Amino acid sequence: MEERTEDRRDDEVVDAAALAAELAEEHPADIAEALDDEDPEVASAVLASLPRERQVEVLDLPDVDLSIDLIEALPVEEAVRLLSDMSADRVADLFRWMEEPGRSHLFARLPPDTQAELNRLLSWPEHTAGSLMTTEFVTVPSTWTVGETLRHIREIERTRETIYAIYVLDPIDHRLLKAVTLRRLIIGEPGQPILSIAPTHDPITADPMMDREDVARLISKYDLLAVPVVDEKEHVLGIVTVDDMIDAIIEEGTEDAQKFGGMEALDEPYMEIGFFDMLKKRAGWLCVLFLGEMATASAMQHFEDELERAIVLTLFIPLIMSSGGNSGSQATSLIIRALALHEIKLGDWWRVALRELPSGLVLGAILGTLGVTRITVWQLAGFHDYGEHWMLVAATVGAALIAIVTFGSMIGSMLPFVLRRLGFDPASASAPFVATFVDVTGLVIYFSVALMILHGTLL
Amino acid sequence: MEERTEDRRDDEVVDAAALAAELAEEHPADIAEALDDEDPEVASAVLASLPRERQVEVLDLPDVDLSIDLIEALPVEEAVRLLSDMSADRVADLFRWMEEPGRSHLFARLPPDTQAELNRLLSWPEHTAGSLMTTEFVTVPSTWTVGETLRHIREIERTRETIYAIYVLDPIDHRLLKAVTLRRLIIGEPGQPILSIAPTHDPITADPMMDREDVARLISKYDLLAVPVVDEKEHVLGIVTVDDMIDAIIEEGTEDAQKFGGMEALDEPYMEIGFFDMLKKRAGWLCVLFLGEMATASAMQHFEDELERAIVLTLFIPLIMSSGGNSGSQATSLIIRALALHEIKLGDWWRVALRELPSGLVLGAILGTLGVTRITVWQLAGFHDYGEHWMLVAATVGAALIAIVTFGSMIGSMLPFVLRRLGFDPASASAPFVATFVDVTGLVIYFSVALMILHGTLL
Repeated sequence: MEERTEDRRDDEVVDAAALAAELAEEHPADIAEALDDEDPEVASAVLASLPRERQVEVLDLPDVDLSIDLIEALPVEEAVRLLSDMSADRVADLFRWMEEPGRSHLFARLPPDTQAELNRLLSWPEHTAGSLMTTEFVTVPSTWTVGETLRHIREIERTRETIYAIYVLDPIDHRLLKAVTLRRLIIGEPGQPILSIAPTHDPITADPMMDREDVARLISKYDLLAVPVVDEKEHVLGIVTVDDMIDAIIEEGTEDAQKFGGMEALDEPYMEIGFFDMLKKRAGWLCVLFLGEMATASAMQHFEDELERAIVLTLFIPLIMSSGGNSGSQATSLIIRALALHEIKLGDWWRVALRELPSGLVLGAILGTLGVTRITVWQLAGFHDYGEHWMLVAATVGAALIAIVTFGSMIGSMLPFVLRRLGFDPASASAPFVATFVDVTGLVIYFSVALMILHGTLL
Repeated sequence: MEERTEDRRDDEVVDAAALAAELAEEHPADIAEALDDEDPEVASAVLASLPRERQVEVLDLPDVDLSIDLIEALPVEEAVRLLSDMSADRVADLFRWMEEPGRSHLFARLPPDTQAELNRLLSWPEHTAGSLMTTEFVTVPSTWTVGETLRHIREIERTRETIYAIYVLDPIDHRLLKAVTLRRLIIGEPGQPILSIAPTHDPITADPMMDREDVARLISKYDLLAVPVVDEKEHVLGIVTVDDMIDAIIEEGTEDAQKFGGMEALDEPYMEIGFFDMLKKRAGWLCVLFLGEMATASAMQHFEDELERAIVLTLFIPLIMSSGGNSGSQATSLIIRALALHEIKLGDWWRVALRELPSGLVLGAILGTLGVTRITVWQLAGFHDYGEHWMLVAATVGAALIAIVTFGSMIGSMLPFVLRRLGFDPASASAPFVATFVDVTGLVIYFSVALMILHGTLL
């Protein structure tokens, strides 16, 4: 596919109709990929030459940027016609990301009822079930039979995002009673009442304000192809489908990874985001961390006398500080993920603390042993002279490592709980954030241990 | 649900039959959750009292540990009977994680053809399409009609993991010709040949050795409910379904997060993994990082003379080192994720370098300005005396920050490419790993800059 595109580029002549004919038989996702390699004008000319059904399929794919480019390059009447055939959630996505004045211009041309529906969908905050749902789903009254339901599905199939879940409503007040899968429908007898093939349990539903992470958990836990979003009266507002959920899970993972790296989530692919937009997302946290880390300079200033008397202590500052940061980073990544997956709850903090305290002590003892060994070997082998009190220096480094690694594990594991408790995203407890926190206190711990052990000798 | 369980605990008497009756109407995922709160003996007694169909549904859920506990607590004949009704991929999972001697004992009791099928499934390496696939899928010869296919599906529905994708095979050599969705089948006329309702494009397939991340990408890109796994002769070996893929994506995210935190992936929930197993996974990398960071002590020793002459330089060592680490951590998290999502390819390294170089310079300049401001303010306000050459010290700190942040961004962004090129997982370029790398070189940069600027004055 890619090679063919390159060839066309070389010729610098693109025959839209010919390309459309060539692409028409491909999978819509592959057509979209090919269109993405073309200029928007060429791409929308190719799109216009595709069979009607294929056009809608391409625009319904999750690549919002491409769909916006294509729609905007089309004549308005054509764009409006295509929008009316697209799935409601995708159209809402387009209008969510389209820029003015094109957005208002196009929106004004839509039929009033479409406008109203879009406004309803767009009113839900980003990343909620409401903002992810689509309004094209299949409902039938509970008085129908399997045969009636199948006939109904055959008639309306084209206009529904999924027909694999059928929602059975109370015929009077339209409350959601049961969710029936197409699978069960297929194996039922035409004369059977639809309720007789419904599962015994209540339907699994989502609230429109539910966070997408929680919706994903529902879909994953109950192996659903779609989850209905219902209001407080148990009326179905829309459905969130499994394919939208996969995209949401992947996006959520990217956001968490970037936050954990110590920056704001980019919200756009690395190569596509503007240079200064990216800088803004990185510079903010970097400055905050820098200002926090300035406390290390203050701590060092406080201990300047000790430093001058025992310059040998400075040699191990980076080693000791980084060990605290590393153990903290490990603990944080563990707890953030466990909280995100609901493996542990806010109230479990003390259980975690009871695990991290001994973990930190053991890990600290391991590193402390390594540190003492290193100083001893270097001293005895004559690689470096740590002075007459080298044993005490080694003891200081060893003891400080135990204290700091334990402290790092505790801070790293408790910080996500504190952030969650204060209403922040635990994922903001980034590796650099924890490291900064531990660096400052680590220095104080190191010098305090040094004062205790070296008092009367070096200090 | 949880509360009810607590109540039962208090009574310390659990009537398995009564509990089974109470649970029978619940969703299998909720039944599993309730069983997970009981002792294995009680849980398997409850399971045995559930309707047959519900038993299989509960065991087919992705919670392998629970299923193993339940199966092992059952009489062998009962266990074998249930295993034969479960989906093949889940049974393979059980035998993959079950411990000896129970595993061999149970395996020997299975019918020979089940053993052969399991051995085939178990032969694929972990995390490949082959290890995730199940062998219960629907195939029909291309000579059939829509009506014949539907009738066939009705007959075999119970024994198939999914019936939402139907694979159309060449009647002679059984090659996969097309994949037809149940949706298209439903709206077709019974007399139509099955091939006439197939999509024009070739079926999307996976290779059995394909990594689960790539399978997830296929399913997400093409919005599939299942992807067929085919051998080189285009015979369908099995299918990977979307619900298994969601679990795999979430697991992959957890592994990457833990690796980025600077440790081995736990592979088990935080609260469930044994204390010493967890320590092992954390201690390894912590020791490696510690040994790497020891180079900072060597670097400091190398510059000990300079340190003694200009003790003021030591004050800013933690600040400068951490800034390099933080900018490196940002760049790494960006690139690891972009590589994982295939937003960038291995060959794009120079494009990334061309973005990171100016990014690093600008971010470094911002932090450098903050650093110089801090020293100037502290000096002029009389908070601390940095000596008569404080302006030169400030210039050293500022220049070093620009150099180190730029260096950190470059190292952080290039390391994932280098690791990928060498055949390692780019996610191993953890925040602590990058920080360690940058710490050592950062010290050398700092002292080199200091020697240049302070030569003849302080040094």
